[in-house]
Amino acid sequence: MGDARLDALQQRLGYRFAEVRLLSRAVTHRSAGADHNERLEFLGDAVLSTAVSSMLYERFGDSDEGDLTRVRAHLVREESLHRVALVLGLPEVLRLSDGEARGGGAQRASILADALEAVIGATFLDGGFDQAQALVRRLFGEVIATTDIDSWSKDAKTELQEWLQARKLPVPAYRIAATRGQAHAQTFEVECAVAALGLTEQGEGRSRRAAEQEAARRMLEGLKASDRPGGPLRS
Amino acid sequence: MGDARLDALQQRLGYRFAEVRLLSRAVTHRSAGADHNERLEFLGDAVLSTAVSSMLYERFGDSDEGDLTRVRAHLVREESLHRVALVLGLPEVLRLSDGEARGGGAQRASILADALEAVIGATFLDGGFDQAQALVRRLFGEVIATTDIDSWSKDAKTELQEWLQARKLPVPAYRIAATRGQAHAQTFEVECAVAALGLTEQGEGRSRRAAEQEAARRMLEGLKASDRPGGPLRS
Repeated sequence: MGDARLDALQQRLGYRFAEVRLLSRAVTHRSAGADHNERLEFLGDAVLSTAVSSMLYERFGDSDEGDLTRVRAHLVREESLHRVALVLGLPEVLRLSDGEARGGGAQRASILADALEAVIGATFLDGGFDQAQALVRRLFGEVIATTDIDSWSKDAKTELQEWLQARKLPVPAYRIAATRGQAHAQTFEVECAVAALGLTEQGEGRSRRAAEQEAARRMLEGLKASDRPGGPLRS
Repeated sequence: MGDARLDALQQRLGYRFAEVRLLSRAVTHRSAGADHNERLEFLGDAVLSTAVSSMLYERFGDSDEGDLTRVRAHLVREESLHRVALVLGLPEVLRLSDGEARGGGAQRASILADALEAVIGATFLDGGFDQAQALVRRLFGEVIATTDIDSWSKDAKTELQEWLQARKLPVPAYRIAATRGQAHAQTFEVECAVAALGLTEQGEGRSRRAAEQEAARRMLEGLKASDRPGGPLRS
């Protein structure tokens, strides 16, 4: 690969490699040769998760583990990584076999997401965790800064209601089953009941709303798991 | 909590906290109060995964991503963490509600595994990634040093079948228990059943085959663990 393209990529990353060979490997798809990026991706996947977790932990000091986990899963999913990889211009530097390249591999979301993880893994190996964290901050800082974490605990109740309505079933009922702790730091236990199916689920959270969401989420998971051909909710 | 117990824990960890309050929080189960360890566990889970990934990456320079991923999953699963937590003496320092304590919570694998992750997260917050990595190295170094990665790349289904046949037992049955996600990015949950022994295990993977392998691997581990002189499978 031309050094010029790797130079430009390092500028966009805001990080200059001591060992450029690591970056070169990070953008090499397995179709392009033995020295490919899969091991770096293994590493980068974990490094990215830690760096994002640390940013979310700082930014959302009041959010519970469940919400943080959902937002993290969203930020590191393939679609999100694909978008960041495009902004970084990874398609231009990706090394693919001729066959993969002709098949449009340089635009494939999974290939680009993997390469982005590999670049993060390479940065970790080359410069240590703090450099990798700084890179992730440059790449994901804005999206994390503008994340509305509340929208992540909205989903389940709405989704459950829609799921039930689509099956002509009445809406679920929520009630507080218990509260624990002192006034300023309470934990709520909420029960979600779908009477028509004789089902109840519990959820816990730092607010009533969070607990309801958790209960709704569990109910949804259970319903979806049972809603397969031959499952108890199909006849 | 008596400072003496936290002092002793810091000695066993080989790390002294600048902010001991973080360690105290890390060993506080949610049943014991609002200042509990769940957010630290969120962070520690990722930090542990990165630290272990980095050690595996170094130690197994020739292994492919699939083998590394399987070994990592094994090392950070609840059972493995539970064992490390016991060695660290976490049951003695754990803070639980009276009810949880009476119910044997201090010996529950999930509670101990979560607390261990929280301790790793607290170390990361207090001392940075390198201190957390050093801690994980002390806790997991030996088990990683003695890991035989080849046993992880063997075809588990084949090995399980051979194991059962050598004992004149019928072959296992596999069935898909659930699928999740959209068509192009599904996760499969497969159940492996050895009817003759009344045992089932679950496995998850991005393909049916990968999920079957995972289920077979767990079944094998369980069988091998039980197959000692005096164990339930010997008579």
